[in-house]
Amino acid sequence: MSTVITLTTDFGLSDAYVASMKGVILGINPLVRLVDVCHTVGPQNVSQAAFVLNTAFPFFPRGTIHLVVVDPGVGSDRRAVVLRTPLADFVAPDNGVLSYVLEQSGAGRATEDGLRRIGPDLEAFAITNPRFWRSPVSSTFHGRDIFAPVAGHLSLGHSPNDFGERVDSLVALPLTRPERSRDGTLVGHILHIDSFGNLITDITIDDLSPAGKPVSIAVGDRVIRRLSRTYADAQREEIIALFGSSGHLEVSLNGGSARAVLRAEVGNEVRVCQSDGKQREGQ
Amino acid sequence: MSTVITLTTDFGLSDAYVASMKGVILGINPLVRLVDVCHTVGPQNVSQAAFVLNTAFPFFPRGTIHLVVVDPGVGSDRRAVVLRTPLADFVAPDNGVLSYVLEQSGAGRATEDGLRRIGPDLEAFAITNPRFWRSPVSSTFHGRDIFAPVAGHLSLGHSPNDFGERVDSLVALPLTRPERSRDGTLVGHILHIDSFGNLITDITIDDLSPAGKPVSIAVGDRVIRRLSRTYADAQREEIIALFGSSGHLEVSLNGGSARAVLRAEVGNEVRVCQSDGKQREGQ
Amino acid sequence: MSTVITLTTDFGLSDAYVASMKGVILGINPLVRLVDVCHTVGPQNVSQAAFVLNTAFPFFPRGTIHLVVVDPGVGSDRRAVVLRTPLADFVAPDNGVLSYVLEQSGAGRATEDGLRRIGPDLEAFAITNPRFWRSPVSSTFHGRDIFAPVAGHLSLGHSPNDFGERVDSLVALPLTRPERSRDGTLVGHILHIDSFGNLITDITIDDLSPAGKPVSIAVGDRVIRRLSRTYADAQREEIIALFGSSGHLEVSLNGGSARAVLRAEVGNEVRVCQSDGKQREGQ
Repeated sequence: MSTVITLTTDFGLSDAYVASMKGVILGINPLVRLVDVCHTVGPQNVSQAAFVLNTAFPFFPRGTIHLVVVDPGVGSDRRAVVLRTPLADFVAPDNGVLSYVLEQSGAGRATEDGLRRIGPDLEAFAITNPRFWRSPVSSTFHGRDIFAPVAGHLSLGHSPNDFGERVDSLVALPLTRPERSRDGTLVGHILHIDSFGNLITDITIDDLSPAGKPVSIAVGDRVIRRLSRTYADAQREEIIALFGSSGHLEVSLNGGSARAVLRAEVGNEVRVCQSDGKQREGQ
Repeated sequence: MSTVITLTTDFGLSDAYVASMKGVILGINPLVRLVDVCHTVGPQNVSQAAFVLNTAFPFFPRGTIHLVVVDPGVGSDRRAVVLRTPLADFVAPDNGVLSYVLEQSGAGRATEDGLRRIGPDLEAFAITNPRFWRSPVSSTFHGRDIFAPVAGHLSLGHSPNDFGERVDSLVALPLTRPERSRDGTLVGHILHIDSFGNLITDITIDDLSPAGKPVSIAVGDRVIRRLSRTYADAQREEIIALFGSSGHLEVSLNGGSARAVLRAEVGNEVRVCQSDGKQREGQ
Repeated sequence: MSTVITLTTDFGLSDAYVASMKGVILGINPLVRLVDVCHTVGPQNVSQAAFVLNTAFPFFPRGTIHLVVVDPGVGSDRRAVVLRTPLADFVAPDNGVLSYVLEQSGAGRATEDGLRRIGPDLEAFAITNPRFWRSPVSSTFHGRDIFAPVAGHLSLGHSPNDFGERVDSLVALPLTRPERSRDGTLVGHILHIDSFGNLITDITIDDLSPAGKPVSIAVGDRVIRRLSRTYADAQREEIIALFGSSGHLEVSLNGGSARAVLRAEVGNEVRVCQSDGKQREGQ
């Protein structure tokens, strides 16, 4: 079957770890299509992997299998899971790397213990059936010995519950959301900085008040006085704010890196002020 | 159809932008073959992308579709185009990134306004028909929302003029050519520096006078006294000059980086002196 | 035929050299599956390429063709070869890059002149028949002009001896092996440092004495007092030793880079002490 399997890891580009996973998959399903999402996720950076996956999976065909191996707990008792959503399947350690997928796929609410209940349209299964694993399983590379063969067999049409018993909740990261401060300022956060140096925030178009205008956006002590529509709206070397291709508010430097100029880091606040549409006296 | 689509971008390797384009393409044509040319083109470096594309496209099978998204003008009124040549199709912003392709495919002469007329064997079309685009189209990522779906549908056999109206000229960069100075020295330029640190110039074998020998090649104040045939002709750590695999004169350091040792940059002059074949007295 | 061809090179990620090889292959066999093993092998680092290949090839399906182009001698009289093993085919320069493959595939003993005899289950052939090459062959890029087309035609089912005459030995690197010092210490070496900064040694589980315990492992002046089973056994920022996924003893820093903290380099010694199982008095 010519299903697509995508791969997202923190294995970097200078070793054969990714290739050995692909070899295992092709040994199981020679016709599968393999697509790299990203292998330069920071070592063991689960939240970065979660974000990167989130910017890729909605654009793949229905039935795509997304294999994610950013797995600091490999060899411990962390679970490995298969998650089936109406759009796609996910094979990953149960460490929060699927947090955005759960958010976007209609998972239920978070429980007190950092888990998230599986919503009605989703199914999740612990990977416990060794029948599909490589043997022997190494204690340090479940990507090659467990996740890759499970993804391979899943691409052949196996039901997700062939791999283990159903579970009703998965680990979820505490995803930041912008908050409204007392003076009406919307306080969001930098979720991700892309390789152009664009600062991508957790603020979406729905978080802005449609009536309230004009807008000012502050990152550190830099204030941006308007929303742009596209990068080309900016003067050369102008810092701008716009809603980017992921639907999130981005701060960007035309012809350079906003990260470098603003010395910004993931987690920093981005503050958006909207007036109520009426310019107040004296302002 | 198992057509090949290649991808050349400045999206880097740490985001899912390339993967999301591939997902869109595979959703349109699940059987297409996807090949990465390069994703580490310098941000918005159109001339670098043009050069890199030029070293790849001649080696792909007839009918390959080359998708190039180095697009500083995304969201502005720059055109998006499909170019059909006898060898291949190209889907790209009309910003000069196809300059070498036009040069090599027999485009007509440059016009005064930085455009280049489309030669008799070529056809070009503006991408204006939104029927094939993702909807809604973001204003910042036409790679995913316009170029990728157009390439996908083109790979299914759509005619290029399904995507928009024919155009008779495309933007072309002013490509440097070596010039002959008054004393007969050939003055070329570094077009590209590859990841080995080899300096690749705009001087080709045809630019040298076949009779004139011997040759000396100068980069900055370093003079190389002969042409080598291959890297292995050099002593360890010797700087040599040779005609490389792209047919261009290269300056190379055996076992190291000529870029680093000569502190060379793209655009620097490389000067070639040939005597007229007769050694002059006193030299 | 949907054979797999893998690619291992030192061409880096910022040029189109790898893509041009893929274009040549797809022009010969449009149905072949192409998988990148690694393209960031250090320039001309044959032993690193040999190691990286070794961590990938055992995991690919039978009949996979592994194309390796780390070729400092391109254009010289170094041979180009096809090696057939029971598991896979290899197309590479004859410069030692297949050393581990020979070791693992049952090659005969090393000869005095740095060659290794081809064992009974293996066949090797010099690539001398220009019928399958691109024409003209450049003197600097045999990857594109000789190795890629040979791999392409091999994937179509050509016999390896269609490409040239049989040879009975191949160049082999002197692979390091741990040695036992007079006081019983096992002295191994760092073979490879992966992108996590893990130090991978030439010591395998078989090199340890099964009876002898406990173990201490020394890298420089850092001593590790036990063997861990997996990365997750470690405290945050603890340096540990364990047998990794390649079956080799690794020294690793949980949550960081052992390379950086221990200032370790490929070739450094790693010393393993095992007592004879009886704790001595006073220790």
